[in-house]
Amino acid sequence: MNEYRYEDIRIGHKESFTVTLTEEMMASFKDITKDVNPLHNDEEYARSKGHRGRVAFGMLTASFLSTLAGVYLPGKRSLIHEVKIKFAKPVYIGDTLTVEGIVEEKNDTYSLLMVKVTIRNGDGDKVCRAKMQIGVDS
Amino acid sequence: MNEYRYEDIRIGHKESFTVTLTEEMMASFKDITKDVNPLHNDEEYARSKGHRGRVAFGMLTASFLSTLAGVYLPGKRSLIHEVKIKFAKPVYIGDTLTVEGIVEEKNDTYSLLMVKVTIRNGDGDKVCRAKMQIGVDS
Repeated sequence: MNEYRYEDIRIGHKESFTVTLTEEMMASFKDITKDVNPLHNDEEYARSKGHRGRVAFGMLTASFLSTLAGVYLPGKRSLIHEVKIKFAKPVYIGDTLTVEGIVEEKNDTYSLLMVKVTIRNGDGDKVCRAKMQIGVDS
Repeated sequence: MNEYRYEDIRIGHKESFTVTLTEEMMASFKDITKDVNPLHNDEEYARSKGHRGRVAFGMLTASFLSTLAGVYLPGKRSLIHEVKIKFAKPVYIGDTLTVEGIVEEKNDTYSLLMVKVTIRNGDGDKVCRAKMQIGVDS
């Protein structure tokens, strides 16, 4: 876990990690949310909608924004204020995602980082874009 | 699970549900994300930061937006396009959250719903506000 302080971070600072979206994550996320939507839970239904398999919960993909802020950028001192997420393409079970955040702006008055996040699948396609406003605790 | 069609839903349509945030959800979310941030995982650290206990992962609270869209509003035909989330107050383990969505706008060209979401704790405090742009599949 990184332990950056606000003053350690410059505009343009990048952090990234990769994670493979698994069957187990899908099951755990369903247990948490009770989201029984068939697009995520029923292979046949998902295929009937033109997908090659069950589609990952969008908010499961978005949950890795927690990791980005809380472990990488800035890590320990992270306090997420706001998140804007756009889902661009479906994510499937087995996809290896690269989550990358880059600091676009800093607000010195409130010790806030504006971080632009891109999540790509193994083919390099952007599956999710996000903007996060993250406070850095002193 | 609701199965509303786009034309079934009027501006002002509301759906809500309650959920209690548990220790097990925290453990599952940590397993998924590997977010080891001490604010969520270390009681003593969280108390040293002025909290009454470990703070729930913000993105765990946000994961119930998946349930709202995929099960309630509109339910089966849900396709989440965009989500904007503001975290207003900390959520603690054991808090019972009420998640309420209300349709603010409709876009007939793209069969999109603009849904305003409020998540309140048991004291009625808004802990999270969100705007979701949700497509309704035909």
